[in-house]
Amino acid sequence: MKSLYTFLLIMLIYPLEGREDQTGQMASQQLNLMPMPAELTPGEGRFPLGEDFTIRVSGPASDRAYGGATRMLRRLSGRTGLFFSQDFIGPEDTSSSAPLELKWSRVGQVELGENESYTLAVAADHITLSAETDIGILRGLETLLQLLVAGREGYHFPAFRIEDTPRFAWRGLLIDVCRHFMPVDVIKRNLDGMAAVKLNVLHWHLSENQGFRVESKTYPKLHQLGSDGFYYTQEQIKDVLAYADARGIRVMPEFDMPGHATSWLVGYPELGSAPGPYTIERKFGIFDPTMDPTRETTYTFLDAFFKEMSDLFPDRYMHIGGDEVEGSQWEANADIHAFMRKHQLSDNEALQSYFNQRILKILTKYDRKLIGWDEIFHPSMPTNIVIHSWRGQKALGEAASQGYQGILSNGYYIDLIQPTDFHYLNDPIPPGSELTSEAQANILGGEATMWAEFITPETIDSRIWPRLAAIAERLWSPIDVRDVGDMYRRLDVISFQLEELGLMHEKNYPMMLRRLTNNTDIEPLKVLVDVIEPVKYYNRPMQREYTSYSPMTRTVDAARPDAKVARNFRRLVDEYLNERKERPATGRRFLGFGRKGRSEHADEMITWLELWQANHARLKVTIDQSPVLDEIETLSADLASCATIGLEALKYLEEGKKASPRWVEGKRNVIKAARKPRGQAELMVTPAIDALVQAAGGVLPE
Amino acid sequence: MKSLYTFLLIMLIYPLEGREDQTGQMASQQLNLMPMPAELTPGEGRFPLGEDFTIRVSGPASDRAYGGATRMLRRLSGRTGLFFSQDFIGPEDTSSSAPLELKWSRVGQVELGENESYTLAVAADHITLSAETDIGILRGLETLLQLLVAGREGYHFPAFRIEDTPRFAWRGLLIDVCRHFMPVDVIKRNLDGMAAVKLNVLHWHLSENQGFRVESKTYPKLHQLGSDGFYYTQEQIKDVLAYADARGIRVMPEFDMPGHATSWLVGYPELGSAPGPYTIERKFGIFDPTMDPTRETTYTFLDAFFKEMSDLFPDRYMHIGGDEVEGSQWEANADIHAFMRKHQLSDNEALQSYFNQRILKILTKYDRKLIGWDEIFHPSMPTNIVIHSWRGQKALGEAASQGYQGILSNGYYIDLIQPTDFHYLNDPIPPGSELTSEAQANILGGEATMWAEFITPETIDSRIWPRLAAIAERLWSPIDVRDVGDMYRRLDVISFQLEELGLMHEKNYPMMLRRLTNNTDIEPLKVLVDVIEPVKYYNRPMQREYTSYSPMTRTVDAARPDAKVARNFRRLVDEYLNERKERPATGRRFLGFGRKGRSEHADEMITWLELWQANHARLKVTIDQSPVLDEIETLSADLASCATIGLEALKYLEEGKKASPRWVEGKRNVIKAARKPRGQAELMVTPAIDALVQAAGGVLPE
Repeated sequence: MKSLYTFLLIMLIYPLEGREDQTGQMASQQLNLMPMPAELTPGEGRFPLGEDFTIRVSGPASDRAYGGATRMLRRLSGRTGLFFSQDFIGPEDTSSSAPLELKWSRVGQVELGENESYTLAVAADHITLSAETDIGILRGLETLLQLLVAGREGYHFPAFRIEDTPRFAWRGLLIDVCRHFMPVDVIKRNLDGMAAVKLNVLHWHLSENQGFRVESKTYPKLHQLGSDGFYYTQEQIKDVLAYADARGIRVMPEFDMPGHATSWLVGYPELGSAPGPYTIERKFGIFDPTMDPTRETTYTFLDAFFKEMSDLFPDRYMHIGGDEVEGSQWEANADIHAFMRKHQLSDNEALQSYFNQRILKILTKYDRKLIGWDEIFHPSMPTNIVIHSWRGQKALGEAASQGYQGILSNGYYIDLIQPTDFHYLNDPIPPGSELTSEAQANILGGEATMWAEFITPETIDSRIWPRLAAIAERLWSPIDVRDVGDMYRRLDVISFQLEELGLMHEKNYPMMLRRLTNNTDIEPLKVLVDVIEPVKYYNRPMQREYTSYSPMTRTVDAARPDAKVARNFRRLVDEYLNERKERPATGRRFLGFGRKGRSEHADEMITWLELWQANHARLKVTIDQSPVLDEIETLSADLASCATIGLEALKYLEEGKKASPRWVEGKRNVIKAARKPRGQAELMVTPAIDALVQAAGGVLPE
Repeated sequence: MKSLYTFLLIMLIYPLEGREDQTGQMASQQLNLMPMPAELTPGEGRFPLGEDFTIRVSGPASDRAYGGATRMLRRLSGRTGLFFSQDFIGPEDTSSSAPLELKWSRVGQVELGENESYTLAVAADHITLSAETDIGILRGLETLLQLLVAGREGYHFPAFRIEDTPRFAWRGLLIDVCRHFMPVDVIKRNLDGMAAVKLNVLHWHLSENQGFRVESKTYPKLHQLGSDGFYYTQEQIKDVLAYADARGIRVMPEFDMPGHATSWLVGYPELGSAPGPYTIERKFGIFDPTMDPTRETTYTFLDAFFKEMSDLFPDRYMHIGGDEVEGSQWEANADIHAFMRKHQLSDNEALQSYFNQRILKILTKYDRKLIGWDEIFHPSMPTNIVIHSWRGQKALGEAASQGYQGILSNGYYIDLIQPTDFHYLNDPIPPGSELTSEAQANILGGEATMWAEFITPETIDSRIWPRLAAIAERLWSPIDVRDVGDMYRRLDVISFQLEELGLMHEKNYPMMLRRLTNNTDIEPLKVLVDVIEPVKYYNRPMQREYTSYSPMTRTVDAARPDAKVARNFRRLVDEYLNERKERPATGRRFLGFGRKGRSEHADEMITWLELWQANHARLKVTIDQSPVLDEIETLSADLASCATIGLEALKYLEEGKKASPRWVEGKRNVIKAARKPRGQAELMVTPAIDALVQAAGGVLPE
């Protein structure tokens, strides 16, 4: 497998006529597949795409395949402007003259472990996409769309033979619709995005302290009193389920219990471990309200509840959360103490496990498998539950070794604003894993988690995309597909293509900048925000208390994870300094290569640094007219200061001189101060400038 | 009234500390209200907006007012980044210390003629918004949001007293969801936009040859067979109705009959005037399929249908279309001939009128008023119907003089891509109208019409906005508010503010350019598309046959109506040439004013012309990589040629020389050829360049 991939990395430069475009990158002649297929073999020639392009189908009746083919044709038409003759693909489309043939053997079930493999063969005069299931057809159609190449002579598909199958069966995205509600259209466009990168599970986090988001006909006060009116009707749920099914995506609901349950208790305080009354939580964190696991009425309630939800959601898995049971309500309740003594439950964990066992019985009755977060893993639980690990590979591996199936989310918490390559290299079964093959087989895959404390329908897409596409590749593609540079190159293309699905990760950025500048020239603000990111991990609420109705329209919200300009600048500095290590810094020699007497890297760095240096004066004009920007004024000033320092350091380096230790220390202190977040956002170019300063002082990075 | 408005135009420069921003326009210190209120009086000082801002309510329980106040607070928070303390405004918010007080006397009915007036008094320490109805409160909250000013010291509302009331009671937007289906989220975001500019009727065009878009429980084959699966469920309809009601907007459904009815006949061919079978129409135009008005079963069917729809839609008005009955099916049907003879119906108009009278009876039974297009106006119809005029003010005035109520859509056909000022100056009762006051009272208002042959959910917003805001002002504001320059100035601001409601008229433009350029540098394409527009009127399908599944992603679709850059260039040329008329063109004298020896106008024109002249070479690189752009290559080349001609003409003018008639004729021929549309799009700067050429030859515009 490894040698195959190395071979492919070379073949990806296809065809070899590629030329550079204005941005210095190779134009679209390269293959831009993501996730990378398991096997691909180049063929001879190309299939030219014209208005005579048609599709034929061959397989048992499948609205999923017909719909997928129709949507694919519309997207192809949208990208190319070509007027195709077919409207809705259906069973009558069997003409043998149609150049794209879709062949499937059976209608798939959208459930864990279903066959998603496909074979795509593009030749000069015809294309065959074959799969065992219609779900495989959907996956292959996405690959075909990604193969499209635009060139001087028109559009074409390069000849290839692709055999593809996923590495993991469970490839998911959790969307929290509780801390901030996300309307149906948000869910749908993200389902389209998921399908485009071959993800197959939407984990729908539907209940929380901050809201209960599903209409319940059995217990209507759940949504009536627990949602502020922001909930999905059952008809809307069914609509989403059908939409997901048509795209080969499972929808697994999560009802978090016994903690994270405030919104349940607003309408049904009798479920709580304290008398109440309860109100919907507006703040974020871990809160007291917890279901009472000692009363039979709790289970009567949950039995009827799960019966209703099992009827509504067809997926075999029911996620019960189970995380972060705070415990204080249990500890304060004498009846619960008595119950624990009576049943020899030694601690809260044991009590929660008792609760989980009761829930397991209920779910089993309704033919559902129980899945929950790490906390549900307890010696008293049987191995037919699934562990969802936020703790990490180690916890997951231990559970897997003990016979529990599990999925990984640790390392895929996209709400924590970490860079794409961090998530990309995070593997449910890392290379060199020492787990037995039996234990490895218990690791089903993973899920990215989009927790919603700091997102709204306006910003959610930019937190999910494009990073999720890299996680999707991790979960679908062979283990040795892990070239970070190539991933980033392809990610840019995929990110752009995702826009055709209505995703707003790109287009909401300038819109938010317009609002922040009160519709004046956004360019100076963009120069700054291009190199800042929101603070990481759980730091955002540290300086300022947020609630579910706080504004999510400030600079920090416009700023995007893994800021591309900053990342590229860091890479530039890295390469520049690595080159110096190879060619030691004697001024004359160094100045001697590259154009204009300097290296290209130095030229490019200087261009950026001069832009940043001059930017603060320009941005100050905008800030003075838009008070919402006051909080980032010193951040902007610091960018200018750091840029000046970077230019000075480069001067030392380019002139082959060495800066004094005192200069280095002074400048490093300025840079260190500039690292301090302002407005919950931070400058992402300071480490690279710091490295330049250290190099100017003679210390090159290891 | 007239003198008041003149006074206000002066006062609008508020406060007089305004300074120019980078774009040469006055910064946000100007008032940017749209629609302009009926009366406004400046007060003393300003109300500073801080995080202590709260709202109190005083009036009978009204979820409409509470919801409107909550949404207003969130929008204010979104614009300013301020963390306000209130979450959901409700009846408990009565604290006398809250600086914004909302006072209403009664809960309004969202129906024609309801009181929408309000009084808004902003003082330095408190704001009072009072209205008879909670609908008036909604209108006033939008005005308050438009009053917000950002300045060096923070955000504030300038002190003002505003007394406002609409000129017309019926201010609507028709959205055709049949030629292209528009999902619920498209409708909702446009309802938000409508509310922002105080429109109060969504005319929902729900049935057509191309689709039947409402779930019917009485006749399920209507939506099952007539919609390709693209229809609104009744629950979705109710959701939209509640959403509109919360914003004080009526929703009037239209079921077009007896023509435009193909989609009905797919499931119920027995309604047709020919035996069928019928299939959903994919093309656009006027088609044969027409209901049979001579069979009693038609009325039995429509009786039950309208009963169901009257239960679903609460609005008192039911639009039955009635336009463009093609007639050929009637003429080919012997039974219909016999029926006409028997009932002494002399022609198709009489037959249609017979049909309308039968429908009127049914609608009256269900307490609905009948409204239809001009064609329903027939001597045999009683005056209790409403005429919806696509024919124009004359037809509308005639009907009004004969006692019929009516609304105007002629001149508001925003699908025809006419400029904003054309719609803005189009008045249901033009200044100087000779209609009696009684007849004038019959003219209820108007509706913009968004027909959907050439729009998709991706492009609809750019066809509606911002032009609709100008039409909204025409229908709300006093008759003498008609300064085109000031309208355009305010329109830019309103257009920007509308983005906060999720409208995509701005942000989808660069997204579409990215797709057209295959994600390379969009700037050269933007330079071109900024000065082109889609062809006008009904010219688009002339060169190319479109269907409901043709691509709507080409350059013509990215191009926007009333292209702002082209409009501003035309104005620049106009002003320049007008100035020349006042100061005759002696070279020395002309060169003598302005900076750099040239007028500022000339400087600015030269900047644009040089940009366009150089643009084709840049864009050609992109075109070569993106075949979808082939169709506009010569348009781009022509822009460069015309720009060169414009520069030559300016040289003559600036040097005070006169071009030869032969030169003028030759260049005018080139410009004339450049006017030819390519890819259904046309260059909008050719008239201005032609004027420069004529002026160079000594002929100044009149």
